[in-house]
Amino acid sequence: MTAAAINGQRLLASLAELGTVGGLPGGGVCRLALTDADKEGRDWVVGRMRALGMEVSVDAIGNVVAVYAGREDGPPVMTGSHIDTVRTGGLYDGNYGVLAGLEVIAALRDADVRTRRPLAVAFFTNEEGARFAPDMMGSLVFQGGMPLDDALATRGIDGATVGEELRRIGYAGAAPVGTNRVDSFVELHIEQGPVLDREGVQIGVVEGVQGISWTEFTLHGVSNHAGTTPMHMRNDAGYVAACVATFARALTQRYGGNQIATVGALTLTPNLVNVIPNKALFTVDLRNTDGAALQAAEAELWSFAEQAAADEGVACERRMLARFDPVRFDPVLVERVERAARAQGRSCRRMPSGAGHDAQMLARMCPTAMIFVPSVKGLSHNVKEHTEPADLVAGAQVLLQVLVELADRP
Amino acid sequence: MTAAAINGQRLLASLAELGTVGGLPGGGVCRLALTDADKEGRDWVVGRMRALGMEVSVDAIGNVVAVYAGREDGPPVMTGSHIDTVRTGGLYDGNYGVLAGLEVIAALRDADVRTRRPLAVAFFTNEEGARFAPDMMGSLVFQGGMPLDDALATRGIDGATVGEELRRIGYAGAAPVGTNRVDSFVELHIEQGPVLDREGVQIGVVEGVQGISWTEFTLHGVSNHAGTTPMHMRNDAGYVAACVATFARALTQRYGGNQIATVGALTLTPNLVNVIPNKALFTVDLRNTDGAALQAAEAELWSFAEQAAADEGVACERRMLARFDPVRFDPVLVERVERAARAQGRSCRRMPSGAGHDAQMLARMCPTAMIFVPSVKGLSHNVKEHTEPADLVAGAQVLLQVLVELADRP
Repeated sequence: MTAAAINGQRLLASLAELGTVGGLPGGGVCRLALTDADKEGRDWVVGRMRALGMEVSVDAIGNVVAVYAGREDGPPVMTGSHIDTVRTGGLYDGNYGVLAGLEVIAALRDADVRTRRPLAVAFFTNEEGARFAPDMMGSLVFQGGMPLDDALATRGIDGATVGEELRRIGYAGAAPVGTNRVDSFVELHIEQGPVLDREGVQIGVVEGVQGISWTEFTLHGVSNHAGTTPMHMRNDAGYVAACVATFARALTQRYGGNQIATVGALTLTPNLVNVIPNKALFTVDLRNTDGAALQAAEAELWSFAEQAAADEGVACERRMLARFDPVRFDPVLVERVERAARAQGRSCRRMPSGAGHDAQMLARMCPTAMIFVPSVKGLSHNVKEHTEPADLVAGAQVLLQVLVELADRP
Repeated sequence: MTAAAINGQRLLASLAELGTVGGLPGGGVCRLALTDADKEGRDWVVGRMRALGMEVSVDAIGNVVAVYAGREDGPPVMTGSHIDTVRTGGLYDGNYGVLAGLEVIAALRDADVRTRRPLAVAFFTNEEGARFAPDMMGSLVFQGGMPLDDALATRGIDGATVGEELRRIGYAGAAPVGTNRVDSFVELHIEQGPVLDREGVQIGVVEGVQGISWTEFTLHGVSNHAGTTPMHMRNDAGYVAACVATFARALTQRYGGNQIATVGALTLTPNLVNVIPNKALFTVDLRNTDGAALQAAEAELWSFAEQAAADEGVACERRMLARFDPVRFDPVLVERVERAARAQGRSCRRMPSGAGHDAQMLARMCPTAMIFVPSVKGLSHNVKEHTEPADLVAGAQVLLQVLVELADRP
């Protein structure tokens, strides 16, 4: 047990301050990846890293890693997350993991503690995927799961590419990607779901991450007058999209608790009250902790969409926006997190993560685990996202202990 | 039988020329009501009216009426339609009725014919309703069915009001509305549906117009993370919208051939792949030739939407964008149209109109009928909208005879 202790006030103040960058009028924050607001947030965090005497490096996909030297050299024990947000994001998603990591370093400096192994705090590029698909792009490239050039060439919803935007905001770094060595990785994050808040549990010990499947459908029908075209002669792209959306919901009922499905984006063309839509562009987000079940759900969804489109005389195109198998974290490290939480007298429970996180990419290259704290009412990707200060501090304290144990182990 | 004859070349040339105003790159035309393009189209048509020696008046809602003096004074025998279009419109919808009316006047002048009663050619403001709801606004106000001030205060999809835009484009006229006297009204229009084209019939003798019900729904749910929110804890506005859209289609199957339903416009907020939509704004267009059936369908749709929203914990607001009962045209005048078509050796059939037309408003104030010509493949509200030149000329020739008979009758 280390002498170092989290400074709650300092942690909360840093979260509030970063929350003002790209802050929205009604609260919440908008820092889509690689926008001016993201650059401003990055500059602020990097400044804080340097102020803590950490050695900062930026890699070719814009991931930022700050190292706090250990008594010995070698691969660092790493923590971190992301600071990009969705268009209507909260203050804690991602940012909490990064700033709690920096608070751990600050606490160690206060207590004049140097761990045996180096400690590193990182934030990864475009975790949200709200502007560029796939999400978790930075950590995916960091781990070697996506070629750098493919990532740099990715075009966003506004037409710009990742490479252009990285250069524009000055975060096309010199450090190479895919060659990093990491001793172990622990990510601290808000749950972004209702489970801990509902059960009144303070610490979530995350055993793994749901698999994710994002499909974008483009349906091509025929625009026609809404009043004079008999129903049996229609090729209504919007109607088929609606059928797929309701099918996706029904599918979750058949597959049971672990299967979820969301149609979050849907755009009709020409989108006029009295014109049959000739085009429907929409996404389906499928998730399951069971990889085989996720594949089956995906296959069912796709064949239903094709059949429904064919029945309506509508052409159906499909594009994979993202695809990740379920991830199981390192059992020994998960155990260590659980022990640390109990040692600090925190209520805790084991659980899967319903959201995608950078940790699932790091899990491919080193022992990895995650720590969750409650989100009030489970609200996330929402300007009302909130976590109680006591829970934010508790999570950081558990992170501190786990990181020090890992860095000091023989 | 008059000596006057339609000049087909002149009619086709005028349609092509007006089609270049607001013309779209890939063909078709965009002249949303009261935009700069609409002003340009109006100026062009008014110039043509004046060149024919007609007396042009513009009323307070921007309807334009041009009178060709008769041998006697009195209420005119009127024809006409509209020249505004949807965003992806064709060259004939509305424009054909207006320019064929002017071609009738030109043909009478060529033959030096003056009818007993005056003849009038009109185009009415905002028939399409694609920018301002309700559609058929100009003829509705003309007939006295909507207070002028309400119409002028109507705010469009871009935030501008009808009154502001009328003044801006110089068509807030001096002529009063609601006081006009019209002897009779005959509107010539493309079918905008597949029936005549499919059956190879050249002239549609329109007996009446389907009733129309436009409902705009606004659903308010809760935005939340698409991966971490259990299905049973969601308030997904987009899912409810999809349920209503599929219900509307199923409803047409239960109600049978005369009941049609279209969800043409649907917008989700925030419209991101991994965020549950907190808002869905969409429209449902219901039509039926039977007024009672239309009311029943409307009631079913509304109660289903409220129930589906309640089941998902989503708030449901409803706004009537337009509501018109089915219309039955004057049997004597319908008979006259049919006789004229047969007298000219045209194949013809009686039919209802599936689309709303200005004629249904005029039918409240004077004996009214409509003449349809085929639309190839029934395409309409579509840049590919097309009617064969021979059919365009045939329709105008029937219109000429009917107007002259009406204007010369004792």
